[in-house]
Amino acid sequence: MHGEIGSKVWAIAEGYIPGESTGPEPEMTSHETACLLNTSDADAHVNITIFFSNREPVGPYSIIVPARRTKHVRFNDLKDPAPIPRDTDYASIITSDVPIVVQHTRLDSRQNANALLSTIAFAA
Amino acid sequence: MHGEIGSKVWAIAEGYIPGESTGPEPEMTSHETACLLNTSDADAHVNITIFFSNREPVGPYSIIVPARRTKHVRFNDLKDPAPIPRDTDYASIITSDVPIVVQHTRLDSRQNANALLSTIAFAA
Amino acid sequence: MHGEIGSKVWAIAEGYIPGESTGPEPEMTSHETACLLNTSDADAHVNITIFFSNREPVGPYSIIVPARRTKHVRFNDLKDPAPIPRDTDYASIITSDVPIVVQHTRLDSRQNANALLSTIAFAA
Amino acid sequence: MHGEIGSKVWAIAEGYIPGESTGPEPEMTSHETACLLNTSDADAHVNITIFFSNREPVGPYSIIVPARRTKHVRFNDLKDPAPIPRDTDYASIITSDVPIVVQHTRLDSRQNANALLSTIAFAA
Repeated sequence: MHGEIGSKVWAIAEGYIPGESTGPEPEMTSHETACLLNTSDADAHVNITIFFSNREPVGPYSIIVPARRTKHVRFNDLKDPAPIPRDTDYASIITSDVPIVVQHTRLDSRQNANALLSTIAFAA
Repeated sequence: MHGEIGSKVWAIAEGYIPGESTGPEPEMTSHETACLLNTSDADAHVNITIFFSNREPVGPYSIIVPARRTKHVRFNDLKDPAPIPRDTDYASIITSDVPIVVQHTRLDSRQNANALLSTIAFAA
Repeated sequence: MHGEIGSKVWAIAEGYIPGESTGPEPEMTSHETACLLNTSDADAHVNITIFFSNREPVGPYSIIVPARRTKHVRFNDLKDPAPIPRDTDYASIITSDVPIVVQHTRLDSRQNANALLSTIAFAA
Repeated sequence: MHGEIGSKVWAIAEGYIPGESTGPEPEMTSHETACLLNTSDADAHVNITIFFSNREPVGPYSIIVPARRTKHVRFNDLKDPAPIPRDTDYASIITSDVPIVVQHTRLDSRQNANALLSTIAFAA
């Protein structure tokens, strides 16, 4: 309906999953999300690579975003090839075989009222 | 005065209206907003389409932003063709017949002090 | 040293100064800021125009950002030609005779712990 | 693996390190961060220059982001040529000899629950 919108390569330079949380799981668990939007009529095969400060990148984490769907991927839930460590600086590159749109969000509930941040990712 | 500024197609990959709130309505109700700015001398006919993770997109939601006006549209208030479900991941595409500027904001008051996020949307 | 960086026209579609605050003034007063950065070797003559939902735009508000300086302008402090009303949706266009960079920030201290939002503005 | 992604010149117009904090150091200390991502196979030699409202810029602060690494630089920790003053408006220009991606984040813990803001920086 809307055709292809976005970019095939995105970067998120910020990344940090707080190790502590306040409130009911899973909605108030401290987490980071990559919101992926695929407006096209083809499934998007997405690969996420995680960069660290002191070791080689890890990935790819492979995700399918079906045609005309959004998928909000919690970095907390990434398991294969390895979980993302908590309380650790990271960054990510997201590639897709069809154009997608990517937005980055964190919920931080370490203290007694949650904080939020969000930004459009960088379209390379 | 400023002529046409912006784009005719915008994407917001994040979307989530918390189902709970703390504080007086409507200002402290948990909500998401698409802030639309039309600097042109013609009315903007805007269509919003909502994308989900597990079903076909819903829309269009039709909105007019008059010439030289801003309209801050709460996704909570969208009713036709269908209300946006709470506590549900979504994303949106916003199209307009004249260039506009779009910014996305959430107020989350589930816990005892509100959190905010905001980002410029993606100009396609 | 860095020459001219940025754009001569910027848009901020979000705008809302909460009418209530918690904590010491002025640092914890609910406010919105346009952060202006002029990296060039010439003073920037900046004009801000405010757009509303239900009446004609107001402005220009004239500001000088000296060469190689940043100025973080609180919308709360704009007085001429008219103060910005509280608890009211608005948006803004910022023009400059030399390229500048603009970022938009809100501090909301209506409840008992402040919230923040920020985004790069839209470079037209 | 991903080659060069990003830009060699970035601007962050917002900048303010709150002088007060609530909670354990260093994770809950009020701070600002420039998240730098270098996806290339060459080390990035990064220079940060800090702009103020009432005096000449200070810098460069020199940082190396190794090949295929991210470095989340706390402005609080910058010391040479001079520390960044607290409770003071500033802005920054970040240059690199290879393309990098930059995201700006603040954690503000002055009140009893922290607030966050983040945005992609402006790619010049």
